[in-house]
Amino acid sequence: MKNIVLFGASGSIGQQCIELLQESKDKFNLTALSVGENDSKIESFLLSFPTIKKVYSKKELNYLKLKYPNVEFLSDDILNILSKDDQIIINALSGFYGLQVTLKAIESNLVLLNANKESFVTAGNLINEMLKKSKTKIYPLDSEHCAIFQCLEKENIPKALFITASGGSFRNLTLEETKKVTLDQALKHPNWNMGQKITVDSSTMFNKAFEILEAYHLFGIKNIITLLHPQSIIHSMVGYNDGSIKAQLSIPDMKQVINYFLHYPKKNSYYKQKEIDFNDLIRLDLKEIDQKRFKPIAFALQCLELKNSKAIALNAANEVCVDYFLKKKINFFQITDIVEKIFQECENIELIDYEQIVNYDKIIRQLTIKRIEG
Amino acid sequence: MKNIVLFGASGSIGQQCIELLQESKDKFNLTALSVGENDSKIESFLLSFPTIKKVYSKKELNYLKLKYPNVEFLSDDILNILSKDDQIIINALSGFYGLQVTLKAIESNLVLLNANKESFVTAGNLINEMLKKSKTKIYPLDSEHCAIFQCLEKENIPKALFITASGGSFRNLTLEETKKVTLDQALKHPNWNMGQKITVDSSTMFNKAFEILEAYHLFGIKNIITLLHPQSIIHSMVGYNDGSIKAQLSIPDMKQVINYFLHYPKKNSYYKQKEIDFNDLIRLDLKEIDQKRFKPIAFALQCLELKNSKAIALNAANEVCVDYFLKKKINFFQITDIVEKIFQECENIELIDYEQIVNYDKIIRQLTIKRIEG
Repeated sequence: MKNIVLFGASGSIGQQCIELLQESKDKFNLTALSVGENDSKIESFLLSFPTIKKVYSKKELNYLKLKYPNVEFLSDDILNILSKDDQIIINALSGFYGLQVTLKAIESNLVLLNANKESFVTAGNLINEMLKKSKTKIYPLDSEHCAIFQCLEKENIPKALFITASGGSFRNLTLEETKKVTLDQALKHPNWNMGQKITVDSSTMFNKAFEILEAYHLFGIKNIITLLHPQSIIHSMVGYNDGSIKAQLSIPDMKQVINYFLHYPKKNSYYKQKEIDFNDLIRLDLKEIDQKRFKPIAFALQCLELKNSKAIALNAANEVCVDYFLKKKINFFQITDIVEKIFQECENIELIDYEQIVNYDKIIRQLTIKRIEG
Repeated sequence: MKNIVLFGASGSIGQQCIELLQESKDKFNLTALSVGENDSKIESFLLSFPTIKKVYSKKELNYLKLKYPNVEFLSDDILNILSKDDQIIINALSGFYGLQVTLKAIESNLVLLNANKESFVTAGNLINEMLKKSKTKIYPLDSEHCAIFQCLEKENIPKALFITASGGSFRNLTLEETKKVTLDQALKHPNWNMGQKITVDSSTMFNKAFEILEAYHLFGIKNIITLLHPQSIIHSMVGYNDGSIKAQLSIPDMKQVINYFLHYPKKNSYYKQKEIDFNDLIRLDLKEIDQKRFKPIAFALQCLELKNSKAIALNAANEVCVDYFLKKKINFFQITDIVEKIFQECENIELIDYEQIVNYDKIIRQLTIKRIEG
């Protein structure tokens, strides 16, 4: 039995983790979890998992405190839901806010199942420095990185990483045509069912840009090629120096990724996922992405050659812009446009520790808000 | 430096081995080789590889004996080209004739790079019995099995093997339409450049049938699914019980396979093979094969549930039929037709040792000739 703490339980990934943990209670004790604004599901979590000892929520939950006196309810510091007997952390927090959990997991030598790609985007160098002195294993809860992880070979250093991209909702539109895109359109992803922020990031291709940065920091390979793959069946690939490529395929399903790392290295049938049906013709298209059409890919590749202030800026400006877009205060096209300007104008400096990174993130957020609000 | 013996040097695979060995003379000593009918290239081999000590040819080569007094020329028993310092055998012989080399390699605890799939088709059980007491490692020189080999995981038993098939020259013809196929048409493969026998076997799909049997004996998995994949870029795949699949891809090139196993487990760039160019759209189609259209696939899958006399009969009858087809004595359609009848009529018994297998092979050949010649 392993003790597991889930950060971001009410989000899309968090929910799927909860469902999987319900199927493998013989292996894991869910000891604590956090939710953000959405506290409506907490009681059902407590009923399902009597092992939960601590709950973090942004709101004070007085009615639950009375009903569950053995559970500790916190709303001050999210990291306080951790206890000394924890073994596994799932970081399913969205945005820069999740970085603190990643760093805490590494400090505490815990196994980390990480869905928070912003951790690597903003603090990849810091994470890798800390990992040198830590026993932490980080497993990426992202179908692309999970695929790459599975296609790595002990004996061989990859020559290239091929990250596939469905192209999001607007893959068939020209850049010009995206100027007319509405919020409702941006919130529909053709292949994956995810949260709002990441769905918008998929349609702008910033999600893919962040995946490039995450892949670089996770696997140490700069030669990253993004392939448009509308079917989302090949989740990513690894190229070797003999010219051959290894790929991982499945029906798109985030639960498979979570299930894989929960039980790693044993692949099991705890979770029965839908299999690819080859009775029908399966067509897989792969083509290198056009960086002029999908500018965030170009920004990410530039980041690989720049100091980390640039990647922090990319993420912070994008978070602010998506927030404004979800509130209908800017339009879809402006997201990339504003982020591009911030990215070009910001400093190119190396920020070494958490405090410096947090400060620079704040500066960029203010700059972005100022640019939007004038 | 490792000593290497090449059986079948003048065939298609043998030639490609020779070319690769010329590029890695710092790693391998080619100490002996065999050729079949085609002795025209022997002298060039001797000039390229002064390390060659023994040569087998079906013909007496008196003019070479005089010119190369330090080389031993043999024409009695092909196995006599082996010496006690040999470390690696490449078995690039075609047909049932190659089985003796495979068995000898296992008896002698040598590393075997094996292109002779007939060894496994006819004597898979015997080979696996012998391997229990041997230190031999067998590496399959076949793009499909090489792909499966690369997609295996230490920690996980496959749930399914997916063998891809280009479908050969006549993949777009109906069974009825194949009745008009000529020899010249059958000798042109759309994606691979190979020897005559295997090219015909590709167009009848007997090659794929034999690959199914080889895969079963090599990897111990009966759940083998054959997928029509006209592009020949995905060389095969392995499915796991979490519903995910691993695949190996490259431009079709037998040299990559040979190069991989020559230097296994290190993938290297000794041989610079053409890489997949994703600037162009790469389209990959996969669809389960129609066993009524491609009957040999059905025969192979039946063999997995039958005694080995059936697989021996499949191979022997096919070898005889292809021979007659190449001599224009039967037509293309008759190959499958005659093999099917022999396969249905032959005994279903387990043949345990080499002698029994050789005898049964002979019986089937005689039966097949009798059926053809009447």
